[in-house]
Amino acid sequence: MRVVDLIRKKRDGRALTPEEIAFLIRGYTRGEIPDYQMAAFLMATMWRGMTVEETLVLTEEMVRSGRTLEFGHLPEAKVDKHSTGGVGDKTSLVLAPIAAAAGVRVPMISGRGLAHTGGTLDKLESIPGFRVQLPLERIRRLVERVGAALVGQTEEIVPADRKLYALRDVTATVECVPLIVASIMSKKVAEGIDALVLDVKVGKGAFMKSEAEARDLAERLVDVGRRMGKRVRALLTDMNQPLGRAIGNALEVIESMETLKGRGPDDLRALSLELAAHMLLLGDRAADLAEARHMAERILQSGAALEKFREIIEAQGGDPRVVDDYARLPQARFRFDYRAEAEGVVVEAHAERLGTASMLLGAGREQLHAPIDHAVGLIVHKKVGEPVTRGEALCTLYYNDDKRLPRALEQVRAAFVIGATAPPPDPLIRAIV
Amino acid sequence: MRVVDLIRKKRDGRALTPEEIAFLIRGYTRGEIPDYQMAAFLMATMWRGMTVEETLVLTEEMVRSGRTLEFGHLPEAKVDKHSTGGVGDKTSLVLAPIAAAAGVRVPMISGRGLAHTGGTLDKLESIPGFRVQLPLERIRRLVERVGAALVGQTEEIVPADRKLYALRDVTATVECVPLIVASIMSKKVAEGIDALVLDVKVGKGAFMKSEAEARDLAERLVDVGRRMGKRVRALLTDMNQPLGRAIGNALEVIESMETLKGRGPDDLRALSLELAAHMLLLGDRAADLAEARHMAERILQSGAALEKFREIIEAQGGDPRVVDDYARLPQARFRFDYRAEAEGVVVEAHAERLGTASMLLGAGREQLHAPIDHAVGLIVHKKVGEPVTRGEALCTLYYNDDKRLPRALEQVRAAFVIGATAPPPDPLIRAIV
Repeated sequence: MRVVDLIRKKRDGRALTPEEIAFLIRGYTRGEIPDYQMAAFLMATMWRGMTVEETLVLTEEMVRSGRTLEFGHLPEAKVDKHSTGGVGDKTSLVLAPIAAAAGVRVPMISGRGLAHTGGTLDKLESIPGFRVQLPLERIRRLVERVGAALVGQTEEIVPADRKLYALRDVTATVECVPLIVASIMSKKVAEGIDALVLDVKVGKGAFMKSEAEARDLAERLVDVGRRMGKRVRALLTDMNQPLGRAIGNALEVIESMETLKGRGPDDLRALSLELAAHMLLLGDRAADLAEARHMAERILQSGAALEKFREIIEAQGGDPRVVDDYARLPQARFRFDYRAEAEGVVVEAHAERLGTASMLLGAGREQLHAPIDHAVGLIVHKKVGEPVTRGEALCTLYYNDDKRLPRALEQVRAAFVIGATAPPPDPLIRAIV
Repeated sequence: MRVVDLIRKKRDGRALTPEEIAFLIRGYTRGEIPDYQMAAFLMATMWRGMTVEETLVLTEEMVRSGRTLEFGHLPEAKVDKHSTGGVGDKTSLVLAPIAAAAGVRVPMISGRGLAHTGGTLDKLESIPGFRVQLPLERIRRLVERVGAALVGQTEEIVPADRKLYALRDVTATVECVPLIVASIMSKKVAEGIDALVLDVKVGKGAFMKSEAEARDLAERLVDVGRRMGKRVRALLTDMNQPLGRAIGNALEVIESMETLKGRGPDDLRALSLELAAHMLLLGDRAADLAEARHMAERILQSGAALEKFREIIEAQGGDPRVVDDYARLPQARFRFDYRAEAEGVVVEAHAERLGTASMLLGAGREQLHAPIDHAVGLIVHKKVGEPVTRGEALCTLYYNDDKRLPRALEQVRAAFVIGATAPPPDPLIRAIV
């Protein structure tokens, strides 16, 4: 088998056999196939796509490239949630404690912020001492003992994805549905899960701008997951405006804890509960969705989820006192109120622009591996449909570096549109696949 | 400017600006842009193509990547011929001496055999002592003194093409028209020519199987060449069956010399004269094509072209005695006559299969840089339209290694089709662009 013939086959629009895909992934992971041949193959795949069968085999081979978590000895279902990335999306910090408190095991391997979107790992690391990079054995014990582990990918899990993702990033082959599907599903399957709830974001702040694209991705993810023997459900949810009001790492941790205390914003609370309910249902903790929703709500209201979050923080080396004392989290030195120049109703609070503003303040990375500032970010005071008077603050920017403010403000200015009447509200959950 | 953004731009079907193309080619030639990014760009270019403007700038930037030949001090026109590659195509060895003897300067940089096709350099190297790899200064002096140089690409000429071609070869991006155009035209323009005659082969033994593909390539080559200020003409010529009767390096040199002596096969003689006539016309040696044809024919018949070939051999270190004594060329130890199994007329003598047979005997390379055997090859006794009796030799295989015979014979067997009646003959010259 010659790599160039496989590139040519894909280039000409033909499907690869399982043996051919295995040859490519194994050879590439071992370093026998050079980056330049894989880069040509990736671009040919962007061009020609992959069948479901090819995507499935690709996913399986990527799982096989490394070690996997095994929880065969635990009787409870292992369930995870994965989001395709949004702005202000801190549902993981709310729903993981809810699901774990309800008796579902949550081996959650998350990522870092990418472009204008936030990442669960970055948010958690704003808690002093919290460690997200743990060896496989530690993760396994956390899931056993605490019921949840909120961690990062290890060197041992799906090494093929790490190599492929780095290459896709520099060869403009990130936005390729079968490659996205294999990347997401291989990491999730390697977590040793039985079931997975997918939160596929749609809208101005999501990677998928149209519902058609998002639905296509959701269907392929669900299809591949089910063919691998997992219970999978996908929710298409709105990402035209940020979720909740906080954007930026420590600010989002605070909003998550507020939500766990029953005081969070409605949309964040509603989506976290809904995703958690689906996790409980897929994890066999409830007979139907109504019962699952009720169970999730009860656990949140009882304070059991808040306690579970405290336990998770402590188990992963963090300072659990942050739960009661937000001042122990990093705090920005400066703040700036961005005020409405006219009276009216908020018609748009553009998620991508607000996410970019937060990133520019230092909450995210303009370059891979750049350090981030956990304290900075924004609080959005006025969301779509809310009335505003002239001079009233639309949002507050929290920052540490004067020089970063102007570019961030430019984004904020472009993000808000004030009109005469409120638009019809976007439904938070658009569809279930 | 970031490479990944340029890859994305091409991937999305947009045209690159001249500055962007310059950035890519300069960065790649200098080694600042890695192979994997260029590989992704090449595949995106296969997918989306290039405009004529992009192809032109690409060609110019490739020329600029190295040194060029300069003949500004010579009053005569500098004219070259380039073929897209065929089987048994030894016209260069006939027409270069004709054109040089007619007073046109011929700085001809040729290539080696590729797949089933032969290469002018390999053929010339079957002449004992003949040197094709010469420094730029030597080439310049040969063109000045002898009127022609039949040489290989040097390290100094179009280094971007050398790097790009090697990468295309292993990333399945060879068959991409704008890349082919830039590769051919950059090398020709770097020769310092004023005019170029292109022989674009069409048919079963050519890289372009259909006339439409060949015409598209020819038009783009002519277009880019003219925009670079060169006089360019392209002939679409038949490559369904081999040109002439000899395939294989020394065998083709002998056939070329026979043609220069007035005894060669009709098709080889006719095409060599026609291409030479176009060179003379573009090189301002004749007022019209009729006069140019007459001039070429006269030079061939007078023996002046044969004398020029002898002079070229001697000037490039070869043994000029081969012209009168073919036994000084490498000779194969064994021969095998492949005979007709039925009586009839030759309906097909498949050029690619016969070229592959010759390659398998050792005349060409299965792998890059493999050594070749200059003595081996085939002589085709019966071409399309010729009658044959049962048991009569269709072709003779010349070989040195018994083990190579069976695979070559397989190809020869599949190459010949004998029928009841002769098909209408393919015209040798299909079109002029």
